[in-house]
Amino acid sequence: MARGRRPTDEVRRDILETAGGLLFETGMGGFTIDKVAALSGASKVTIYKFWPSKGALALAGYFTAVSDVLEFPDTGRVEADLRTQLHAFVGLLTETPAGEVLRELIGAAQTDAELLTAYLSSYSAPRRALAVERLDAARSRGELRENLDSESVVDQLWGACYHRLLIPDQSLNVPFVDRLVDNLFRGISA
Amino acid sequence: MARGRRPTDEVRRDILETAGGLLFETGMGGFTIDKVAALSGASKVTIYKFWPSKGALALAGYFTAVSDVLEFPDTGRVEADLRTQLHAFVGLLTETPAGEVLRELIGAAQTDAELLTAYLSSYSAPRRALAVERLDAARSRGELRENLDSESVVDQLWGACYHRLLIPDQSLNVPFVDRLVDNLFRGISA
Repeated sequence: MARGRRPTDEVRRDILETAGGLLFETGMGGFTIDKVAALSGASKVTIYKFWPSKGALALAGYFTAVSDVLEFPDTGRVEADLRTQLHAFVGLLTETPAGEVLRELIGAAQTDAELLTAYLSSYSAPRRALAVERLDAARSRGELRENLDSESVVDQLWGACYHRLLIPDQSLNVPFVDRLVDNLFRGISA
Repeated sequence: MARGRRPTDEVRRDILETAGGLLFETGMGGFTIDKVAALSGASKVTIYKFWPSKGALALAGYFTAVSDVLEFPDTGRVEADLRTQLHAFVGLLTETPAGEVLRELIGAAQTDAELLTAYLSSYSAPRRALAVERLDAARSRGELRENLDSESVVDQLWGACYHRLLIPDQSLNVPFVDRLVDNLFRGISA
């Protein structure tokens, strides 16, 4: 079969796109490696070669599916770029199935060590690294204070959104993320 | 029996203390209303009169167990008071079973609507209200800027800690919470 001779990168990308699409359609409840194999035409052996578990595959597929939406613009003004990215992030969490998928994955990961490891390595750590890279660049060009710890800023922007996603006492929306940015750039002191 | 004639408040407090103690000892896995009844000497009927479910009782017991540790000092300087409270909060999450209990409860609440409702009403909303009250008071006495939204600050302090508790890419510790406070009071701009 021609399929068998396709380049590895292409096969990988097909599987990831299929996995991301299936996850958005069914949530983790309907997500199986069997279905990804059937839909993508890849064998289960091939899938397991790249991803050790269902959770790892779901997360890698998720990362692929949201990468375009979550891309950072780079206008050279970090405050504006953060607002743009955070608006897209909140839109993704509140207006697409992504929010429910993440709630389910993060929730299950609290009592499933393997899933947590997959979540950290396949999704949250790479996304955190992208944000830190952008914040560090802004600090290097003099937009942010010299001794700033970029990691802590990630928790006060995206982490604050995850807090409202998982513990929804208050609404997660665009005015909220704008306040998060305001608080950090203007400070909260009188 | 003398027990039957005890004032309701006393019975309630006994049940809550028993529930909190049991939860810290066994986690949600070993927490049952039967055990709380046996340990407190209260009947299951009495317990169900106050708390509609196991989750609601566990959360109310948890709230009682941690209230003293999480109390806010009130020195009239909000930045110092926040640091003191956040240090105690991080200690509770990282040096006692509380962190694991919360991970388990918040995790399970993502796919258990009843538990989520109990979590919000019995634990997170009342704790959020205590923090907002303190921040609003500081704003009223001129320590924080006039147009500050206190709710958003809760997500950038305690919410940022929950982010690291649930998605542990980075460590949750005292230097981290000090940076959270620094970022908000000094701002992150150059």
